Amino acid sequence: MPANTPTNKSDAMRALMAPRSVAVVGATERADASSSYVMKNLMRFGYQGKIIPVHPKAETVFGYKAAPSLTALDNTPDVAVIGIAADKVIAALEEAGQTGVKAAVVLASGFAELDEAGRQRQRRLIEVADRYGMAICGPNCLGLFNLGTGAALYSSSLSTNLQKGRFAILSHSGASAITLGNTGRFGLSHIVSSGNSAATDIPDYLEFLATDELTNAVGIVIEAIREPEKLAAAMENMHAADKPVIALRAGRSARGAQATAAHTGSLAGSNEAYRAFFRRVGIIEVPDMDGFIETTALCLNLKRRPAKPGVAIVGVSGGGVAHVSDIADEAGLSLPDLQPETVAKIETLLPPFATPQNPLDTTGAVFANGDIYRDVLHALAGDPSVGLIVAAQDAPAGLDDFCAAEYLGIADAVSAYAETGSAPVVFMSNLSSGHHPAVEARLANVPVLRGTQSVLTAVNSILLQNRNVSWPGAPNGDKSTLPPGAPTEREAKALLASEGLPVPQEQLATSADAAAEAAGTLGFPVVMKIESPDILHKTEAGGVKLGIASEAEAHAAFDAIMASARAYAPDADLRGVSVQEMVTGGVEALVGIVRHEPFGLGLVVGIGGVLVELVRDSAFDLLPIDLARAETLIGETKLASLLEGYRGGPRADRKALAELLVKLSDFAARHGDDIEAVDLNPVAVLPEGRGVRILDALVIPRKRN
Amino acid sequence: MPANTPTNKSDAMRALMAPRSVAVVGATERADASSSYVMKNLMRFGYQGKIIPVHPKAETVFGYKAAPSLTALDNTPDVAVIGIAADKVIAALEEAGQTGVKAAVVLASGFAELDEAGRQRQRRLIEVADRYGMAICGPNCLGLFNLGTGAALYSSSLSTNLQKGRFAILSHSGASAITLGNTGRFGLSHIVSSGNSAATDIPDYLEFLATDELTNAVGIVIEAIREPEKLAAAMENMHAADKPVIALRAGRSARGAQATAAHTGSLAGSNEAYRAFFRRVGIIEVPDMDGFIETTALCLNLKRRPAKPGVAIVGVSGGGVAHVSDIADEAGLSLPDLQPETVAKIETLLPPFATPQNPLDTTGAVFANGDIYRDVLHALAGDPSVGLIVAAQDAPAGLDDFCAAEYLGIADAVSAYAETGSAPVVFMSNLSSGHHPAVEARLANVPVLRGTQSVLTAVNSILLQNRNVSWPGAPNGDKSTLPPGAPTEREAKALLASEGLPVPQEQLATSADAAAEAAGTLGFPVVMKIESPDILHKTEAGGVKLGIASEAEAHAAFDAIMASARAYAPDADLRGVSVQEMVTGGVEALVGIVRHEPFGLGLVVGIGGVLVELVRDSAFDLLPIDLARAETLIGETKLASLLEGYRGGPRADRKALAELLVKLSDFAARHGDDIEAVDLNPVAVLPEGRGVRILDALVIPRKRN
Repeated sequence: MPANTPTNKSDAMRALMAPRSVAVVGATERADASSSYVMKNLMRFGYQGKIIPVHPKAETVFGYKAAPSLTALDNTPDVAVIGIAADKVIAALEEAGQTGVKAAVVLASGFAELDEAGRQRQRRLIEVADRYGMAICGPNCLGLFNLGTGAALYSSSLSTNLQKGRFAILSHSGASAITLGNTGRFGLSHIVSSGNSAATDIPDYLEFLATDELTNAVGIVIEAIREPEKLAAAMENMHAADKPVIALRAGRSARGAQATAAHTGSLAGSNEAYRAFFRRVGIIEVPDMDGFIETTALCLNLKRRPAKPGVAIVGVSGGGVAHVSDIADEAGLSLPDLQPETVAKIETLLPPFATPQNPLDTTGAVFANGDIYRDVLHALAGDPSVGLIVAAQDAPAGLDDFCAAEYLGIADAVSAYAETGSAPVVFMSNLSSGHHPAVEARLANVPVLRGTQSVLTAVNSILLQNRNVSWPGAPNGDKSTLPPGAPTEREAKALLASEGLPVPQEQLATSADAAAEAAGTLGFPVVMKIESPDILHKTEAGGVKLGIASEAEAHAAFDAIMASARAYAPDADLRGVSVQEMVTGGVEALVGIVRHEPFGLGLVVGIGGVLVELVRDSAFDLLPIDLARAETLIGETKLASLLEGYRGGPRADRKALAELLVKLSDFAARHGDDIEAVDLNPVAVLPEGRGVRILDALVIPRKRN
Repeated sequence: MPANTPTNKSDAMRALMAPRSVAVVGATERADASSSYVMKNLMRFGYQGKIIPVHPKAETVFGYKAAPSLTALDNTPDVAVIGIAADKVIAALEEAGQTGVKAAVVLASGFAELDEAGRQRQRRLIEVADRYGMAICGPNCLGLFNLGTGAALYSSSLSTNLQKGRFAILSHSGASAITLGNTGRFGLSHIVSSGNSAATDIPDYLEFLATDELTNAVGIVIEAIREPEKLAAAMENMHAADKPVIALRAGRSARGAQATAAHTGSLAGSNEAYRAFFRRVGIIEVPDMDGFIETTALCLNLKRRPAKPGVAIVGVSGGGVAHVSDIADEAGLSLPDLQPETVAKIETLLPPFATPQNPLDTTGAVFANGDIYRDVLHALAGDPSVGLIVAAQDAPAGLDDFCAAEYLGIADAVSAYAETGSAPVVFMSNLSSGHHPAVEARLANVPVLRGTQSVLTAVNSILLQNRNVSWPGAPNGDKSTLPPGAPTEREAKALLASEGLPVPQEQLATSADAAAEAAGTLGFPVVMKIESPDILHKTEAGGVKLGIASEAEAHAAFDAIMASARAYAPDADLRGVSVQEMVTGGVEALVGIVRHEPFGLGLVVGIGGVLVELVRDSAFDLLPIDLARAETLIGETKLASLLEGYRGGPRADRKALAELLVKLSDFAARHGDDIEAVDLNPVAVLPEGRGVRILDALVIPRKRN
């Protein structure tokens, strides 16, 4: 390939992730050198491709014939591992690009995580990568390991206990990749510790893994998302390939973000924006490492997807079942009541003192006869609302074999059920230390999971998982479609009104007759306010009258207001009286637009009014949203109860509020690039059929740096 | 001892928990009999005391000489294990009582958990126990096991892997006792599975364990508390003996409570009441089994108590430290900023690219030199706000020995620090599966804990633990001190006012002059309202005037109100006009009293007004409370921010609100036995110095069954 034609992206990713030949630049046998770790890992894991140490002087490195430079090679290697200091990296990458190397691993630190010189170095690295179309893992990384081919381009110790399997780990954090890779709970196809991920990041790796035959599911440990649109596009391919993606994000808290920033120089976005993004692109977010492991074990081992969201829980002890129920409740699981037919069936199976309900305590009767347990599982699976069964059964690993043997009947019953049962079953220990190995050994065809909280959270997230990408990217609109500067409330309302958003109607009247006519047109009662750029405190000037109920009153009010205002400010420019629709009653909502980079604008809705900061009732989503999503968002708030007619009030016009949200979303799509935030508080949601009115509006223009 | 003198309670508990001789009533070699499990467990665990099988016909049981009845024995055994069916249990207990047996274990089910006949049987069991002063474990239980003496009065399999140690488990649930006893994480002194705990319950066992030389700490798995005063008294002794009590409660959720009720027939109380009770008596509540285990391991292995609540977190990876920080934040841990001297000291120890902050990423530099890690721990311990250090270091158990060896230097550094370090240190894995055994082996002098959420929650609960009993029992007052029947709002306010609680002032005026005088006395503005038992809708009757600002206005208002009311209801009994202090402004609070059996009355405070059910801002404690506690409770609410002067409002009279809470607590102490609930909403908290006023009051009399 001519040196100046950029490499095709997927060729470059294949060269990085599944190389047929590897050059190790700076290869040495010195024990503390990162390159010697790479050489030793390649040897230890039996890499079948060609290994080419590159060193200006060495004849051989670990017995492999060395080359003095990449340029000196006859055959271009797929990937160059750059095992030299940061200040020499760019030159080495240039040489690699020139010679047609498609991919590189840059191990050295001293880039954006360090200082301004490092940030500049990182920009040059990206520039080189772009110029040649190279895929680059790193810099400031441990590297990557393809367990299928033994391509261990990895600069730290790799455990020989690592099992090949069908799960790929992509991690911004090297330590987290080591921890999660070595749990022994699942086999791996790839480990990628991508460090600063300057030129090649999670979306690029996912694009490769979507078509990688070794991989069924992917876990990502993520500190920041820089290009959400690229990640959303990659998720399209992951969903098409039916490969779940599980994400653990570091830096959710302020302290955590501070630690992350010190580490990589990347800034974390807001939690709610990340959560909304993950939901919309169908990434399963997990709360911690244990959650990562159980969710992964569940994804890899669940034979088929639950067809319904209802969960049945079964155990052999009342106290144990109660404990699981408590945590199921806290995890938000839906535990449906059983249908009478299911209850009747279970009654025929269990002793008379058992209570046939969900969660179900079979009582200890099943120890003597495992068939009962199996039949109970079938009965639960037959219930029309049960989509998945959690068989909660502890059998601590510390038991002696004699005691452990008491649980084998139950394990066998679960395994037998799983062969033909109509709803998937999960076998769970309340202990994170798991089950006795003798018990687990009987359950090869069932996901065997550990730790009540982690497991039930994992089950819930699988049941609720979005399997689509429903985010078209940030709606930034055209630049500079709004007039420059921060609009006043009046201007903001006029702007919103001009785009179809509902603000109170008003008309300017310059005579008492006109005021009476305007009031009649608007409908009584109305509010009348002096219109003058010179009078800021209208009430003090006697310039406001509320509740005007007839044309005669409006006529009189015009004269009274003008007279009061003139007396108050003899020199003021009095332009007349604004006659306004008087909005009374209704439920106060808050509706807002906020910018959360890198995701662009999001929308907030919740209870409005003065207590809004205390109530903290809000639902959030990234824009754009449609009417169905607007309805769902409202339903996630406490505002929804208010709209239903709180404390005997009338039912409010929720539909009109949902339409307002969509109109605001459309507004943001047109003007988004100019907007930092929009705050509509309160929005009066009037009784059903009477719509909504924006009573106060603040539009904050985009901050430009 | 003569048969009719009840046994001393502590003698009875000693006979139950540390018996020198055991009679097994109904002893048989039949494999499925509970008594044969007991016999075999006594033999297997080498019980050194005397074993006496009791059987009407058998000569020997498992080689032990049998007696035909308890009465036939020459020497009275300490404890009788009743291994016969429920319908024969009461007669056997009677016989045991008659012969002077001090304690019994009743294994059979068929008591209160089953049906009405069973509930009656359980009442008779309690009656027998009371009459003879017997301690009785059960009924419907697995029994108990003293690992120190091998007294395994236990009707299920016991693992021979159980280790002797210094932790006692008391459990209402048999299955949970098995699970938590067999984790291999700590050695045990006693396991008690007390089932229905009819005559002898957690408080009785704790009284024994407080002075038991084998036991340093106790874990309780609890489904219901029946006698909170007894438990509080037992906790006094546990605190005096410096033995922590860790509680896992099943039935926190509605589903869980339902499962528990089906299981034992006991009803769960409210979560908030349980939580308040645990806090006030100094019991450490844990969220789940993993939390139970880590908290126990921490309590048993922490050499000394942290002197300050601040936690420092240290790790070797930025991503890892960020992850721990996120969960520390979610767990509510206090991570203080480091003092400049600490920062300066750490700067001298770590490479220049490290950021000296809390949480602290040492960077990988410490792998090459563990002394750095040790010195960093000493530097953190020297910070004036650091009370405990969490060294977060994963070293997965699945690593090969070569990889695991890389972490030994860090483990050794932590262990070396712990020998002399001034703040206690905890070594934590993010994985609930724990550390590689080679790493853990280096840390015998340090608590080695597992799972980020469980560990940090455990650390937080130890740091915040109350080590006193600050609950004198439910303040139920005298019976029938209140007039019978439900008081009207007016009567309720008068009742509260008569006991010194602040309601708006009012005076009844029967003439215009008197009204003017009353208004002058109360201070303007005032509200005036018609006083008539015959006029319910005062406003419609023209019987209410607000904002009366002078004596002249008051004079005129009296006449106007009387005339309007007369016109509205010509036959009404008009008693005059009530002149009332007009309360405007102020922050609306809710203050309430609610009954939560078995704990009696509790107090609620939070944001008041119409949105109260939506805002759900409230703090709760059991009564009685003092002024300091009242202040703390207010501080736990969002109301506290409102009182500070929300959105530019004046600072409100928080002190007066706290005093109101104490007065209400005193009120409940006097009248508690008559009260089901009190609801004061809103209470107006006026600007500082102006006090509080109860604007609406509801007193609900006690429900009597």
